[in-house]
Amino acid sequence: MKRGFNFSPGPGTLPLEVLEQAAEEMLDWCGTGMGVMEMSHRGKAFMSILNQAQDDLRELLMVPDNYKILFMQGGAVAENAIIPMNLLGYCAETPPIADYIVTGFWSDKSQKEARRYCNVNIAASSEGRHFTHLPRQEEWKLSQDPAYIHICTNETIHGVEYFWEPDLPGVGLPEVPLVADVSSHILSRPMDVSKFGVMYGGAQKNIGPSGMTFVIVREDLLDRALPICPSVFTWKTVAENNSMYNTPPTYAIYIAGLVFEWLKRNGGLKAMEKQNVAKAQLLYGYLDSSNFYCTFVEKDCRSRMNVPFFLHDDALNDKFFAGAESYGLLQLNGHSSVGGVRASIYNAMPLAGVQALVDYLRDFERIHG
Amino acid sequence: MKRGFNFSPGPGTLPLEVLEQAAEEMLDWCGTGMGVMEMSHRGKAFMSILNQAQDDLRELLMVPDNYKILFMQGGAVAENAIIPMNLLGYCAETPPIADYIVTGFWSDKSQKEARRYCNVNIAASSEGRHFTHLPRQEEWKLSQDPAYIHICTNETIHGVEYFWEPDLPGVGLPEVPLVADVSSHILSRPMDVSKFGVMYGGAQKNIGPSGMTFVIVREDLLDRALPICPSVFTWKTVAENNSMYNTPPTYAIYIAGLVFEWLKRNGGLKAMEKQNVAKAQLLYGYLDSSNFYCTFVEKDCRSRMNVPFFLHDDALNDKFFAGAESYGLLQLNGHSSVGGVRASIYNAMPLAGVQALVDYLRDFERIHG
Repeated sequence: MKRGFNFSPGPGTLPLEVLEQAAEEMLDWCGTGMGVMEMSHRGKAFMSILNQAQDDLRELLMVPDNYKILFMQGGAVAENAIIPMNLLGYCAETPPIADYIVTGFWSDKSQKEARRYCNVNIAASSEGRHFTHLPRQEEWKLSQDPAYIHICTNETIHGVEYFWEPDLPGVGLPEVPLVADVSSHILSRPMDVSKFGVMYGGAQKNIGPSGMTFVIVREDLLDRALPICPSVFTWKTVAENNSMYNTPPTYAIYIAGLVFEWLKRNGGLKAMEKQNVAKAQLLYGYLDSSNFYCTFVEKDCRSRMNVPFFLHDDALNDKFFAGAESYGLLQLNGHSSVGGVRASIYNAMPLAGVQALVDYLRDFERIHG
Repeated sequence: MKRGFNFSPGPGTLPLEVLEQAAEEMLDWCGTGMGVMEMSHRGKAFMSILNQAQDDLRELLMVPDNYKILFMQGGAVAENAIIPMNLLGYCAETPPIADYIVTGFWSDKSQKEARRYCNVNIAASSEGRHFTHLPRQEEWKLSQDPAYIHICTNETIHGVEYFWEPDLPGVGLPEVPLVADVSSHILSRPMDVSKFGVMYGGAQKNIGPSGMTFVIVREDLLDRALPICPSVFTWKTVAENNSMYNTPPTYAIYIAGLVFEWLKRNGGLKAMEKQNVAKAQLLYGYLDSSNFYCTFVEKDCRSRMNVPFFLHDDALNDKFFAGAESYGLLQLNGHSSVGGVRASIYNAMPLAGVQALVDYLRDFERIHG
């Protein structure tokens, strides 16, 4: 058994210790005589796993008391519909309107889905510059009375990350919630949850296996659902039932809980941020120094988690990926919509993995440059 | 490590061999250098896992070629909303109407959720007799033009199972699809898929971990969705993208695939049926012979998978459950809505487990009877 360094954008690499513990506990969790996958979700054993995972996530991210943490299903793509269904029931406009800031593939997908339920105002977009920068808040052309404002704080495909939190009271809209897809950089550094009405995402980047969705929602927003919202996706129902209105994805929650414990053991989000900064500097630093590779995202919004880059000579791509794989550098392909290379360097990727990638980049450039 | 016999209604016991293989492959699947949880869902490795799982399920259940097998999220409870959203777009009635046969907790929950989207006609109900029998098809009072007819073929809580498949062309409604929640007895025996328009359920009983939903849908029904149906839950979209429109619950699909392989190695559904009949006969046989325990479901519709029963003296329940646990007989509590005892004896429960339970029932009766 030889594990590679796995740069998948998600489902992505997980901490070795987490996987080892999961394997060890597979047949019998803590002397209960059964594995976690086989436990009734309403039994004492699983309830303790669920509650611990929620508490740890709250502690790590310093989630204020007036926010609920929900574990759901369907991923961020399902939430793209679930969000309007949960927030449009309280909107002065008829038909209701929601504002979207489009900064890449994922926020664009979000606004397209929302159009099933409301009018969408694209308050700002960086598409004209190929999603290589972030429109400043002063440039946002917000509606008069939107039901909410939606952003994606880290674009997994285009590699664009917000390093500032929008300050909505400053633009005179204290009651309009800011909704953020934080799928691919949650837990990579501290964030000020209180700036958001809703933070959501799929777990399969920095948290755990696919099939689990997290929603962190301010309590006063739980009364805004449309009647067409399915019960299992109505945040209020999920909150009132502590994420157990229906059977939750129990094993995914368990793995997420192990990841939260691993984060706590390793110094929490400040320590993660320090390591993530070091990893990103190492990789971007090399790319900037090279004329063989190129990146396009502006420096002030380059994602620390997802680093898309290109070989100047596209014809070398196949050779590049084959060589990488032979070095144990896995899943480096860029997304089909943009091509090129993408290194996703989530929390579970050690600095040594990024170093191995940079070493390979240098070798490949030396041979083919 | 001592594994008990686990009678949980779901998430439920899994085959030991499956868990052992999963534990062994946790860090490295087939020499890829990564675990299944860490694989991009669009990579070759996971695609092979997904396709094999679909093929094996099709083979086991003899799913005809004109049916699609979808792996989704949200469980059967989410499908209760997803079904009307997928089938009401084609209904002669305004507002549309759907017919429900109510035979226990779960079919009742299904019809309640459907009321968000359409008028519901309760075509038959066994509630008046406390869900202890199944209304015959001749008794169903169907609507003139329902969008579909919904049944639950095994009621996990009330322990009622259909051993006959409704024959809708016989009542003159060839174009009205029969929709069945088969969550808790799928793969326990062969079923004639062609009698159904849609079969669906959560995986966490006879298939695998919670967090995965299966939908087996006849292709001609894929064009009936309402525009409010979220993209990720629109069967046509899911089918066109081979269950990969969004990130699927990859690890749950992998475990399901291991269970399908286990079923094939062990003789498929005919062999399972034989063993399930033997297990049910052993348990019901003992209960029928006893004056200490009682069951209420009529003999012709007693579930082979979920056996609810009661001690005549309720006051002994706590002692009963504590004693069972000390014998390694786990998760026998009845559902909170009905109380008493429930033994769920899915495919992965060996005959030896049922024998151990019967031995305990006899001992307990001898001491307390």
